[in-house]
Amino acid sequence: MNALQTPLAAEDQALVEGVLSGRLRALAKTITLIESQRDDHKRRAKAVLEALLPHSGGAMRLGISGVPGVGKSTFIEALGLHLIAQGMKVAVLAVDPSSSLTGGSILGDKTRMELLSQSTSAFIRPSPSAGSLGGVAEKTREAMLVCEAYGFDVIIVETVGVGQSETAVAGMTDMFCLLQLPNAGDDLQAIKKGIMEIADMIVVNKADIDARAAQLARAQMKSALHLLRPASANWTVPVLTLSALHKDGVVEFWQQVEAYRKAMQASGEFEAKRRHQALAWMWEMIDSGLRARFRSHPEVKRQLPGLREAVEEGATTPSAAAWRLLGMLN
Amino acid sequence: MNALQTPLAAEDQALVEGVLSGRLRALAKTITLIESQRDDHKRRAKAVLEALLPHSGGAMRLGISGVPGVGKSTFIEALGLHLIAQGMKVAVLAVDPSSSLTGGSILGDKTRMELLSQSTSAFIRPSPSAGSLGGVAEKTREAMLVCEAYGFDVIIVETVGVGQSETAVAGMTDMFCLLQLPNAGDDLQAIKKGIMEIADMIVVNKADIDARAAQLARAQMKSALHLLRPASANWTVPVLTLSALHKDGVVEFWQQVEAYRKAMQASGEFEAKRRHQALAWMWEMIDSGLRARFRSHPEVKRQLPGLREAVEEGATTPSAAAWRLLGMLN
Repeated sequence: MNALQTPLAAEDQALVEGVLSGRLRALAKTITLIESQRDDHKRRAKAVLEALLPHSGGAMRLGISGVPGVGKSTFIEALGLHLIAQGMKVAVLAVDPSSSLTGGSILGDKTRMELLSQSTSAFIRPSPSAGSLGGVAEKTREAMLVCEAYGFDVIIVETVGVGQSETAVAGMTDMFCLLQLPNAGDDLQAIKKGIMEIADMIVVNKADIDARAAQLARAQMKSALHLLRPASANWTVPVLTLSALHKDGVVEFWQQVEAYRKAMQASGEFEAKRRHQALAWMWEMIDSGLRARFRSHPEVKRQLPGLREAVEEGATTPSAAAWRLLGMLN
Repeated sequence: MNALQTPLAAEDQALVEGVLSGRLRALAKTITLIESQRDDHKRRAKAVLEALLPHSGGAMRLGISGVPGVGKSTFIEALGLHLIAQGMKVAVLAVDPSSSLTGGSILGDKTRMELLSQSTSAFIRPSPSAGSLGGVAEKTREAMLVCEAYGFDVIIVETVGVGQSETAVAGMTDMFCLLQLPNAGDDLQAIKKGIMEIADMIVVNKADIDARAAQLARAQMKSALHLLRPASANWTVPVLTLSALHKDGVVEFWQQVEAYRKAMQASGEFEAKRRHQALAWMWEMIDSGLRARFRSHPEVKRQLPGLREAVEEGATTPSAAAWRLLGMLN
């Protein structure tokens, strides 16, 4: 697909080479370029990404979600340190669409993962604060590809689960894990938000506080999963209890991740999922691009307010207004 | 908004006058015109709808959903007969995206509502079988407007809840009611599908079979609602038990509908919801129109297969492919 490649400027060639030879500064600069809103930066980012793309895809992409207070940072630090001790390199990214308002609520403060952030085998990057969920997710996806080209073995993508951010993270990772508190009724929240459907593993954290409550929550979630999800031939969603604080259960967690990867790779679902995710991402970008072009069309801009009002007041049907607006694009 | 009006041909003027003067044959012919896939019919349907639009909006729009076997037909017949006995006119429409495959699984057979279909105050129309959910929903929405212009007091829109059809029906009605069986675990299915979030009333039907089980199911759903939905200032979602077979609870059901309408009208939410629904419908039509135009563009048609393959194989990023395809539209 050389026809698609954009030629690289010298400074961008230096970024690409820096990332590929494992220079942390080049990695950070490349992600900053990707996150930039400037049009010239966007063009450069596109070229850099295309050059890095052939070197991406090698990491295990792990999504982690859970409400504030569930102990995500503690868990990710414990997991990250465990993986580093096994000789792996770990990147931690985040999708937090609220970060543009709060100035970065998750991972904004590296001190929350103090030990992990000091390791030379780890890279922690707060959520881009680009506004919409779609924009934030796109930049995180692209940062993930850069991290893979750099050589990380595991990429953890964290989200607090604001709005549809779980779906976005599940749509960019190989395995999506939900952290739960050992509280009754928390399973209902997860079911309600449709997360039970997309979680590949569920973890009841803070099991140290009340082991019995944790076991009860685990049993509840197992029975909810049983009712809601048809059994898959190759994977049964495990529900683990864990204490991130005491590093209890982290080894078992990673064993499950490896079992999942092995099962999915053997069945061909691992690759199929990545292909499907890439296509879905392309269509998402196309849809949002079409909508943006539509809204910026001069005639649409001029007539949309009046037609919107006519639709709201019942003076015209929504489909007649839609036809009329679409007709202006010709 | 006269500028939007399309002039009517004589035969279409006759349809409009027929509908407005309450002729059933004109009503049925107009809906058939709306459901037609022919381009000349679509243009005519648009003009007829615009002429009828000022006369629409007067009915209470009631959505009814529930799995096959929950007793929807029996319930709708009991409710319809009750309303007719009060002097009202009732139309029953359906959204069943599977009907193009099955030849109309719901309402295909009017004998399922034998008494109601014999009444001159009732009109029962099976689901249009136009293929996609979006297409089916659009035609049902437009049929609803025609029924309102005709003078129906209540329009019931039924769905079996295939795929996203509940969301579509909730998006076109004033009040969305979910029928449930008195089975444990059924509430989980409703929560999972997100219906608990959109239901304005929940009915446990077939309470005659096992009154205790029905009460238990009711209590479960009430507690799930309590956990899942923040209390609204103006409406608390009621959970009723009912026996459609014995016509037990139908009066109470309609009292709740009237209480809901009164509360929503008093707070202004009734009108606000309709305005919001009309706008959402317009944007849905615009999005699907934009996608259709995109896919039919000659250059996109030519290059989409190759770019899709490049994205799937990781030879280009999804966003680069999307930019490239969008650039072809210029």
